[in-house]
Amino acid sequence: MSAPAALAWDAARLAAWSEPHLANVEAALSRWVGVDAPVLLGDAMRYAVLDGGKRLRPLLVMAASEAVGGRADAALRAACAAELIHAYSLVHDDLPCMDNDVLRRGKPTVHVKFGEADALLAGDALQALAFELLTPDAEDAGDDEVPSAMQALLCRLLARAAGSQGMAGGQAIDLASVGRALDEPQLREMHRMKTGALLQGSVEMGAACAASVPAPALAAMRDYGAAIGLAFQVVDDILDVTADSHTLGKTAGKDAASDKPTYVSLLGLAGARAQAQELLGTALAALERSALPDTDALRALAHMVVDRDR
Amino acid sequence: MSAPAALAWDAARLAAWSEPHLANVEAALSRWVGVDAPVLLGDAMRYAVLDGGKRLRPLLVMAASEAVGGRADAALRAACAAELIHAYSLVHDDLPCMDNDVLRRGKPTVHVKFGEADALLAGDALQALAFELLTPDAEDAGDDEVPSAMQALLCRLLARAAGSQGMAGGQAIDLASVGRALDEPQLREMHRMKTGALLQGSVEMGAACAASVPAPALAAMRDYGAAIGLAFQVVDDILDVTADSHTLGKTAGKDAASDKPTYVSLLGLAGARAQAQELLGTALAALERSALPDTDALRALAHMVVDRDR
Repeated sequence: MSAPAALAWDAARLAAWSEPHLANVEAALSRWVGVDAPVLLGDAMRYAVLDGGKRLRPLLVMAASEAVGGRADAALRAACAAELIHAYSLVHDDLPCMDNDVLRRGKPTVHVKFGEADALLAGDALQALAFELLTPDAEDAGDDEVPSAMQALLCRLLARAAGSQGMAGGQAIDLASVGRALDEPQLREMHRMKTGALLQGSVEMGAACAASVPAPALAAMRDYGAAIGLAFQVVDDILDVTADSHTLGKTAGKDAASDKPTYVSLLGLAGARAQAQELLGTALAALERSALPDTDALRALAHMVVDRDR
Repeated sequence: MSAPAALAWDAARLAAWSEPHLANVEAALSRWVGVDAPVLLGDAMRYAVLDGGKRLRPLLVMAASEAVGGRADAALRAACAAELIHAYSLVHDDLPCMDNDVLRRGKPTVHVKFGEADALLAGDALQALAFELLTPDAEDAGDDEVPSAMQALLCRLLARAAGSQGMAGGQAIDLASVGRALDEPQLREMHRMKTGALLQGSVEMGAACAASVPAPALAAMRDYGAAIGLAFQVVDDILDVTADSHTLGKTAGKDAASDKPTYVSLLGLAGARAQAQELLGTALAALERSALPDTDALRALAHMVVDRDR
């Protein structure tokens, strides 16, 4: 089902592919985030976004865009926009009224550093900025004239991934489920929305950076995104019990401590690991089915999502 | 400068113009907000948005769109999107870490009713929904196929109005200014961003609902929007000291109580009233300059902004 081992990228090959993309994303985020904002707000926005995180969503956008032969300028904007939505969700999720977390990526969380009010506003402003990045006007963008139909499609995909039927909706279900028994379909639906929607949305945004992609390939990309989106959460649940806070860069064991249902609490550790492998197989099979010529990076990212240790 | 009194709309004429637009907006919001969201989140979103508020931003969108002969379908979406951004900002602004307000439009605030976490998420989801409404795909929209260039432009205008150089940025400056002396230019800049940007953005979004508007007319519309945006805040400051909580539907006197700089604290009551009248004159002059044929509703809305008692 997956590519023969001799053809699959190892971690070094993925790192070599990722490096220039990550450099572009970091440079673009540094150029675009919080620069013309009022000083404390801008600082909080930059603190929340720059120099942190795995940048998985940007890499998925970039890899998906390459797979379909998408526009690099549009993909860079979409990559940054997806990361901003992710970053804002972490800022709000860490607030005292939500998870009340003080440590994120090994650093004090935004509200610890800047106060709750500025953290709230920084998250709000990051969400708005995501949509601003997706809609450059020709004058500001210079050579970077993303066609307006592509701009509108990227906004549509991101808004759906972020909103009440995506990330924010999943967080609300998560909130309501603390201390309650969820069965596996309910847990899956919660995670499909909370984490999966933006990961899948990142893949779809990347695929939207080409003017025309065959419908079956698009459908396969969506399936790939859905599978790795869920796999990501299953692995998160595994790491929450197997890794320590230092490696994770955030508080380990907090799901168990707060009596949240997880894949591990539902399926056991071995069951959760088997689930992750099964989802990896689903993702790789979808890439095969896409019949797109250049899916090596997407394949390697799927492996990375499942094999990561933080 | 303004139209002769015989030609200006009175309150009854404005109400007659507004009525069908408001009915359309209420029906659309009820159809679009929180309907497919997880139950508590959807309830909080609807509570925050439906059956409340003056709907000034939607009316500005509608009036501006009519002035340029814009598409009614695009204007309805833009009107609702602007209102969602406004509604989300109120939800977040009322949170304990911001203004800690318990009364809004005569009802308990969202966090009092639904808890802080769901209020936070409802605000986040409302912002995402605003951009989702602006980017319907042809299939979902039915007959309502807003051209993608118009979708992208509407998203751009809304994102800029809402973000760190607009509403969220102004709120951050407001936060940082409590107890500090601001001079009039600083106060003006804060309000231009905090309240003015979305009001001006609403006018610009309405003007963006026509495929082509002469550049001088667009510039005049922007000037109109800027003037009434600022006038709105000046009047807000006046009402904060002259009206009671019952009439306002929110806590009166709270700016003075929290030692926030206001136009009244800076200019005195008479000075603030003179400022509001001057801005009204600026707005009406801009409409004259626009040379657009049908600006009666915009003119009447400018009067309403300045003459309102809540």
